[in-house]
Amino acid sequence: MDLTKFFKAKSIAIIGVSKNPNKIGHVVFRNLLDGHYPGKIYIVNPNADRVLNYRSYKSVLDIKEPVELAVCCVPAELSLQALEHCGKKGIKDVVMITAGFREIGNFKLEEKLVKILDKYKIKIIGPNCLGTLDAHTKLDTLFLPRYRMKRPKPGSISFACQSGAIASTILDLATTEGYGFAKVISYGNALNVDESDILEYLGNDEETKVICLYLEGIKHGKKFIEVAKKVTKKKPVIAIKGGITEAGSKATLSHTGSLAGNAAIYSGMFKQVGIIHAASLEEMFNAARILEKAVQPKGNRVQIITNGGGYGIITTDAIVNNNLVLANMDEKNKKALRKVFPPIVVVSNPMDLVGDATTERYRLAIDAALNDNNVDILIVLVLMQTPLITPDIIDIISEFDELRKKPIICVATGGEFTMTLRKSLEENGVPCFTFPESAVRAVKQLVEYYVDGKK
Amino acid sequence: MDLTKFFKAKSIAIIGVSKNPNKIGHVVFRNLLDGHYPGKIYIVNPNADRVLNYRSYKSVLDIKEPVELAVCCVPAELSLQALEHCGKKGIKDVVMITAGFREIGNFKLEEKLVKILDKYKIKIIGPNCLGTLDAHTKLDTLFLPRYRMKRPKPGSISFACQSGAIASTILDLATTEGYGFAKVISYGNALNVDESDILEYLGNDEETKVICLYLEGIKHGKKFIEVAKKVTKKKPVIAIKGGITEAGSKATLSHTGSLAGNAAIYSGMFKQVGIIHAASLEEMFNAARILEKAVQPKGNRVQIITNGGGYGIITTDAIVNNNLVLANMDEKNKKALRKVFPPIVVVSNPMDLVGDATTERYRLAIDAALNDNNVDILIVLVLMQTPLITPDIIDIISEFDELRKKPIICVATGGEFTMTLRKSLEENGVPCFTFPESAVRAVKQLVEYYVDGKK
Repeated sequence: MDLTKFFKAKSIAIIGVSKNPNKIGHVVFRNLLDGHYPGKIYIVNPNADRVLNYRSYKSVLDIKEPVELAVCCVPAELSLQALEHCGKKGIKDVVMITAGFREIGNFKLEEKLVKILDKYKIKIIGPNCLGTLDAHTKLDTLFLPRYRMKRPKPGSISFACQSGAIASTILDLATTEGYGFAKVISYGNALNVDESDILEYLGNDEETKVICLYLEGIKHGKKFIEVAKKVTKKKPVIAIKGGITEAGSKATLSHTGSLAGNAAIYSGMFKQVGIIHAASLEEMFNAARILEKAVQPKGNRVQIITNGGGYGIITTDAIVNNNLVLANMDEKNKKALRKVFPPIVVVSNPMDLVGDATTERYRLAIDAALNDNNVDILIVLVLMQTPLITPDIIDIISEFDELRKKPIICVATGGEFTMTLRKSLEENGVPCFTFPESAVRAVKQLVEYYVDGKK
Repeated sequence: MDLTKFFKAKSIAIIGVSKNPNKIGHVVFRNLLDGHYPGKIYIVNPNADRVLNYRSYKSVLDIKEPVELAVCCVPAELSLQALEHCGKKGIKDVVMITAGFREIGNFKLEEKLVKILDKYKIKIIGPNCLGTLDAHTKLDTLFLPRYRMKRPKPGSISFACQSGAIASTILDLATTEGYGFAKVISYGNALNVDESDILEYLGNDEETKVICLYLEGIKHGKKFIEVAKKVTKKKPVIAIKGGITEAGSKATLSHTGSLAGNAAIYSGMFKQVGIIHAASLEEMFNAARILEKAVQPKGNRVQIITNGGGYGIITTDAIVNNNLVLANMDEKNKKALRKVFPPIVVVSNPMDLVGDATTERYRLAIDAALNDNNVDILIVLVLMQTPLITPDIIDIISEFDELRKKPIICVATGGEFTMTLRKSLEENGVPCFTFPESAVRAVKQLVEYYVDGKK
């Protein structure tokens, strides 16, 4: 299904733009203005002449120019007429933020809506959704104000999310942490554009490198499985299933009207189609971070480099517990390192460069591991708190990372000083984690996609 | 064992204070000055007359006034003489930052050190440690500069940590996140003050409400078990065992010279003595946060209140997966809420106040759950991104929390706007998490300590 218009439309009509800045339509309008959306914007409100100094139309039918996309923000009882008008105007793509259908038991109204959609061949995202965002075109229909929810910079993660709440909060957090996004789609009740359609579209989308999915239900199991199998061959897909327990499943009914299924069934299905199943929201975004940034590993043998012994130990435990393999570097390389390092350095795995490690010591260690045939992945833990680590460490790690030889994953725990350096590393393309256990978990998912999945 | 001097000493001698600001002794000296330690500071350096305009003594023996605590920062080969002088001076408590003993195979030097300690009855924390911190007295011997590692405000979490790296990074991060600490002890090789002594001391310490432990090895198993059993009856202890896998255990040998044991043995022992076993550093500090702030729950029945359906579902899944119980509020109370709420609100568990929830809706819902006999714990998820949530929400939640009736745990995911509001909540004493899954995990540990542990 071609969803291009939802992201690339050059003209938008917002239906239901009140003068009240708290109302949904107004917020959407304001966001497009403030976000510098470069296309044409038309607003529809039969009870106003102008809003924010834009001419207000009584209906989309009064707009003379062509309109590529509509955003429907009027209450449910008014939405049928609005859609009817869209149909007559020839608008085939509508973001339907309007709620009040299946999710509150209003099946009849939904049936009427479906008839209109069928009649005019209109595709809608929603109803009962938060909207959509394309960070590249700045086409932003998310109905939360920008001062409450930041918009991300253009990037290559796309997020399709049945829950508007989860879409907005995660986007807000991820943006603050510096993630870039391609497309965000809150698809609500998934009436005639469902998770499979979106997944397929994102699978073919060149701007999308990694796909995150939050699903409550799956509309057509067979379709989803077929699409997912194809997409995961091209790019990684990470999913969370909301309502995976029986009690959670009951709660989905009153939320998006989905019938959620059993935990084991979903887990098995995800595995079968090559989707990475995240255990938590945090895990999903850690996986997205590593899969967006890291190069493809050739195997699962991990070398740890650290300047804090305890961190090496915890990371070792995590590697073993995640069924990854501790790399055993070539004896020749280890010997060479022992020659240049002071005797207190432990040239092993973990390689402990100890508390007085210099940036140069890191350079030597990373260089050796990167060129060692027994190492597939490097986890580099840097305690930025120790006195001899200079900000040059950012350059050194980033330059090695730019060679794109092996995945280099960084871990740095700490306060403002550390956070600043970590952010620089991230901006240079190095995935960088706060906690070693989360980093290893993400490495496991990198291996799951690129190594285990290709077997 | 009385460790009071390590935290409350009114006079300190720092042995080995170079003029070089990167050297350990200098950093310790500088930190005490910059941290406004109110006691007397003496510095020892036979090769300088003055450092930072303080008189430098050739040895502690040259100091005429009494000295309650020494910090030994000289290299291993010079440390024996320094300790000998401490003994003669009558100093019984020494923070021994000096490294280069058992952990690098230098058992002989360690034996000599032990002889001196025995002879003069000196207690040392270390050797091979990062130092100690009392946030209340500002007695700070941690050898990392303040610009790289922030110092926490006074609080009631204490952290005993065999790894200096973990102590420093976690302290730095936790401080940035607004945690308060009582005491931090990096105890390194644990030569004659071991983890059991420290645990016992913290157990009796009135400033300490929650104890975090990072252990690599346990010196005397029987002693540890006896002490832990006593302490966990008084206050919660959360522990991480580094080197819990075989590979991780090998790495502890070259780190703190500990012989780490088998995973199952440690897990079983922790359970037996009532210690909460954290699966990761992040989990340990989430548990500490909730155990420091929340009141004691009477049971394990959790009511979820949210303004985002997806969040309610994910939280429900997490509650079930953590073997907690979804509360079922009294029908009378639910009926009363349904009367005052618009029909779109789902009065159930999760209670979904939906996207247009006002702060007032939260007030009604929290009030009802707090006074419902079928509810033991409240998890309140607030999406600060939605338009009708005003910052008053902080007041409302904080005031309910101040009644100290039931634990109220908040979750708010998001960027700067959310983080600011979340910080206010935390400062008002409400434990507040970024992710629902982490919050539920922490609630599980709260229940484990107060409910399951008392059975």
